[in-house]
Amino acid sequence: MTSSAPTARTRVIREPQRAVYDRDLINAILDEGFVCHIGFVVDGQPYAIPTSYGRVGDNLYVHGSAASRMLKQLGATVPICVTVTLVDGLAIARSVFNHSMNYRSVVILGAAVLIDQPDEKLVALRSLSERLVPGRWEQSRPPNDQELKATSILRVPLTECSAKVRTGPPEDNPEDLALDVWAGVIPLNLVPGGPIPDPQLRPGIAVPDNVTNWRPKR
Amino acid sequence: MTSSAPTARTRVIREPQRAVYDRDLINAILDEGFVCHIGFVVDGQPYAIPTSYGRVGDNLYVHGSAASRMLKQLGATVPICVTVTLVDGLAIARSVFNHSMNYRSVVILGAAVLIDQPDEKLVALRSLSERLVPGRWEQSRPPNDQELKATSILRVPLTECSAKVRTGPPEDNPEDLALDVWAGVIPLNLVPGGPIPDPQLRPGIAVPDNVTNWRPKR
Repeated sequence: MTSSAPTARTRVIREPQRAVYDRDLINAILDEGFVCHIGFVVDGQPYAIPTSYGRVGDNLYVHGSAASRMLKQLGATVPICVTVTLVDGLAIARSVFNHSMNYRSVVILGAAVLIDQPDEKLVALRSLSERLVPGRWEQSRPPNDQELKATSILRVPLTECSAKVRTGPPEDNPEDLALDVWAGVIPLNLVPGGPIPDPQLRPGIAVPDNVTNWRPKR
Repeated sequence: MTSSAPTARTRVIREPQRAVYDRDLINAILDEGFVCHIGFVVDGQPYAIPTSYGRVGDNLYVHGSAASRMLKQLGATVPICVTVTLVDGLAIARSVFNHSMNYRSVVILGAAVLIDQPDEKLVALRSLSERLVPGRWEQSRPPNDQELKATSILRVPLTECSAKVRTGPPEDNPEDLALDVWAGVIPLNLVPGGPIPDPQLRPGIAVPDNVTNWRPKR
């Protein structure tokens, strides 16, 4: 699957030139980020809560936290929105009005299901773990039955989704180009600092390469 | 105002030890970030959409985009959620289950108002501009009447808000501390690259210091 035709709800209306429905690009954004915001409604009040996620093929697995309480109460699938936003830079224009951000974002609308089969929970937890630090699943102690039970994970299919991308320089009005004002882009990068060992780390355990060399997957 | 007593809706239930209701800390998080996710509901479908914002005292101004279309249709205040999330690091545990993220987030619940007075729009746009690049308001061409009209900005009072903060090393189970597995934190920083001039920049315009020296305000 390489494309997701937009529905009336995922079709990007504001600045549609920034919209992308290509599934490869959507996957690439999802596979670079590691924090999503999950939108859901309780008693008419919308919430947007940050949490972690992982992708397995055409499904996104989202760490449940707040949303899972709601799902457990309602006991059914509920409409949610999952959004992943990567900020790439600040577009500094000559006019206040044309300042902007360079970013890549994916918005997924769908019915979330609280998964309950241990096998699928393992698959989901593996995807979350590998999204955070690739290779970590094989390095760390696997979840036991009690931990699997304590973990709430939502599954959302990647059927109704779209991406929005802005790149490049600011777009000033033609009449502003003559102004004596600097314009351009400040690129922004997520950069890891050196790994900080746990104070309780046993002596003689080296930092694994996938931690030392961790970089956002771009 | 230095504290926001939690309501039933903003009281942090999951991992309450991470909850903070101190308004100074809430302000500090809001004044460091520059992207929020705004949660709102249309026809029962929740949305979580990234956008920019600025703070002026006890109000948050949020760039309208998608949510403003909804507000214009409804023609009244509507319940929204505005969330700002700063990711500070990855907490790498010995067990898959105890992997976590270090982060600071603020969740604001409230009734959004679409502002329409030009004076308040100027105040709001100034706060958005200064949030992005401090000092930029004085450097760039101010909004004209047409641009003010074209700008949709929501005002949300900071009355019902809470912060959630995780810092420090991973928290493994005591029986896992003896494992032959590295544990610790990968700190994450948002780092600017060198400014990229607009290809249409007139010759002889120097990069201003506030662009050269841009850093997240921490």
